[in-house]
Amino acid sequence: MAEVYAARRERLRDHCAAAGSDAALVSRPANVRYLAGVAPQGAVLLLGGKEDVLLCGEALGTELGEGRPDEALRIQVLDAAGVDAAVAAAGLLMSEGAESAQVLAVEEHHLTVARHRALATVAPRLRLADLGGAVERLRLVKDEGEISCLRIAAEIADQALSELLESILVGRTERHLALELERRLVDHGADGPAFATSVGTGPHSGRITHRPTDRRVEEGDFLSVCLGAAYHGYRCEIGRTFVIGTSPADWQIELYDVVFAAQRAGRETLRPGAACRDVDRVTREVLGAAGYTEALAPRTGHGVGLEIDEDPRLGPAAMGRLDACVPVTVEPGVHLPGRGGVRIDDTLVVRPEADGGPELLTITTKELLAL
Amino acid sequence: MAEVYAARRERLRDHCAAAGSDAALVSRPANVRYLAGVAPQGAVLLLGGKEDVLLCGEALGTELGEGRPDEALRIQVLDAAGVDAAVAAAGLLMSEGAESAQVLAVEEHHLTVARHRALATVAPRLRLADLGGAVERLRLVKDEGEISCLRIAAEIADQALSELLESILVGRTERHLALELERRLVDHGADGPAFATSVGTGPHSGRITHRPTDRRVEEGDFLSVCLGAAYHGYRCEIGRTFVIGTSPADWQIELYDVVFAAQRAGRETLRPGAACRDVDRVTREVLGAAGYTEALAPRTGHGVGLEIDEDPRLGPAAMGRLDACVPVTVEPGVHLPGRGGVRIDDTLVVRPEADGGPELLTITTKELLAL
Repeated sequence: MAEVYAARRERLRDHCAAAGSDAALVSRPANVRYLAGVAPQGAVLLLGGKEDVLLCGEALGTELGEGRPDEALRIQVLDAAGVDAAVAAAGLLMSEGAESAQVLAVEEHHLTVARHRALATVAPRLRLADLGGAVERLRLVKDEGEISCLRIAAEIADQALSELLESILVGRTERHLALELERRLVDHGADGPAFATSVGTGPHSGRITHRPTDRRVEEGDFLSVCLGAAYHGYRCEIGRTFVIGTSPADWQIELYDVVFAAQRAGRETLRPGAACRDVDRVTREVLGAAGYTEALAPRTGHGVGLEIDEDPRLGPAAMGRLDACVPVTVEPGVHLPGRGGVRIDDTLVVRPEADGGPELLTITTKELLAL
Repeated sequence: MAEVYAARRERLRDHCAAAGSDAALVSRPANVRYLAGVAPQGAVLLLGGKEDVLLCGEALGTELGEGRPDEALRIQVLDAAGVDAAVAAAGLLMSEGAESAQVLAVEEHHLTVARHRALATVAPRLRLADLGGAVERLRLVKDEGEISCLRIAAEIADQALSELLESILVGRTERHLALELERRLVDHGADGPAFATSVGTGPHSGRITHRPTDRRVEEGDFLSVCLGAAYHGYRCEIGRTFVIGTSPADWQIELYDVVFAAQRAGRETLRPGAACRDVDRVTREVLGAAGYTEALAPRTGHGVGLEIDEDPRLGPAAMGRLDACVPVTVEPGVHLPGRGGVRIDDTLVVRPEADGGPELLTITTKELLAL
């Protein structure tokens, strides 16, 4: 694994060199983890200079957080002020004998104004530049090691969900069902839930990021569930909607069929080279043709990886195209205020048609089950 | 409740006026919640100008997060770029007819460099200043409404812990015990856990922020547990250490007595006017007199409230003194590598001696129980 991290850091170093930076300070936790193998709270990774150093704050103690640190990396534990001082020291080392100011690229979309100012003060010989989303762009296309973590995460979520479906649901609260799912994720080897599990019943069903309440499952309800496992830091997502009772009502079948068709259209659009906005457009068109145009989610899906919501974003204003080995969710939904709704959410990996097309990671059935 | 939030905003407005700012942009989530009653993801609160506005990003959808928004507050839902634009518009409104540039104070310790730059670009007529920790300072002393939320949170944690102690522990894993505790917190009405529950057994016991593993509880182990409930947004913390089996070993009794004495010394130091560093010093002296000087936590305790770790910090370098109605933890511990250790952690509210001295919120016994 050490070579994987070293190779990633090498790619970032190349990027920095091309952009005219002598070194980079990576502070966004998922980016630190991607490059170092761990991301202790408050840790920053300094790339360049004489060697790469992971600088950890005092909050850490002896803990190094989840994951294993890359052994090729020097780890320096400091107090909070010390991180800035160490960066400064590294900066000064770099400047030795240099004629012009050295350039340190920082993540301006993550670093706070106060931290930026402190750096500028302790390292006056450094010029601070913006690293922008360079690490996020490296993270976009996953290697097979990352995809296999996502695959295991998806298996765990599928298992937790299938076990829940075998139990009695009527009379249980949304909060209890959500907790039960999270316990099962951990039982099956997850680091933990990938995000707060959402369980919506009856009028709450089909809402995006619904927080579970004390409402109990009733006969005739739609039940929508969205959960995911984190496995070795990688996060997947699955969402399904079920009907409680023996037979769904006509409006439930109709609504389900529309969302299912929209989700399938989105999945079928996933291929290397497809425009991100087209995936969103085709799902929206199916919903729109059935008369559902209002209160739709701003996006149809998003990338997953070390974060549950990362690039690419699949929405009407999304730029860019999909690549092979990019995992994304496809998750259209419709919520009818007061009545409830349907969401169907899968995690898939974009693959060329020659390799069989998109790889579905979350394999729980998408038939409308009556439980 | 609306008056509570309005009064808090009024105090902040007074602070801004005294500091020469015309308006303030609050972005740190706990600060937004303190002033607005809710903190939807990514929301910012704009104070000043013609009216106070809570600006919410698109990620929110129809969700407004936990808590109830102050009804006196205008809520504006915008996409991400819209927040900056709305701030700019508010800024421009403020500038109407003004001769000099208007000053907007922002939370430089929370706002990213990129966001700060975007604000400066869209609102060139505004001068951006630093609000610093002004809201954090307002949050330091709690009102009785806040303290009663903390009191309920502590009751919930006490209940969850006492139920766990009645169950069979030997053979269960740290991860299962932690999940079970979190389920019980929710059962008893918590919003959720106040932080990731820590359960350490045997050699893991007594470590700060130990992440539960698959190690199983064994006879003769120390078992240390640290948990807390969030209730209406307010977070408490309790930590206890137990012995598994019929009778503790001599070294366990000795170690426990030392940590207990240190924790008591810290608790007894809590009074209005006491220096924060003195609370830390007295606990450290007890541990030091018994020969434990190494690998101690950098702090003995910290404030709690809308965040689980907030001001004041009780450590050797802490500045400032305690006030009445400031809730803090007192949580010394000793961990002997390879053997395990003891932590004892309470949440208390500083009260004057005339009112009976510090109010203990977490009332689970601190006798060394053999389970």
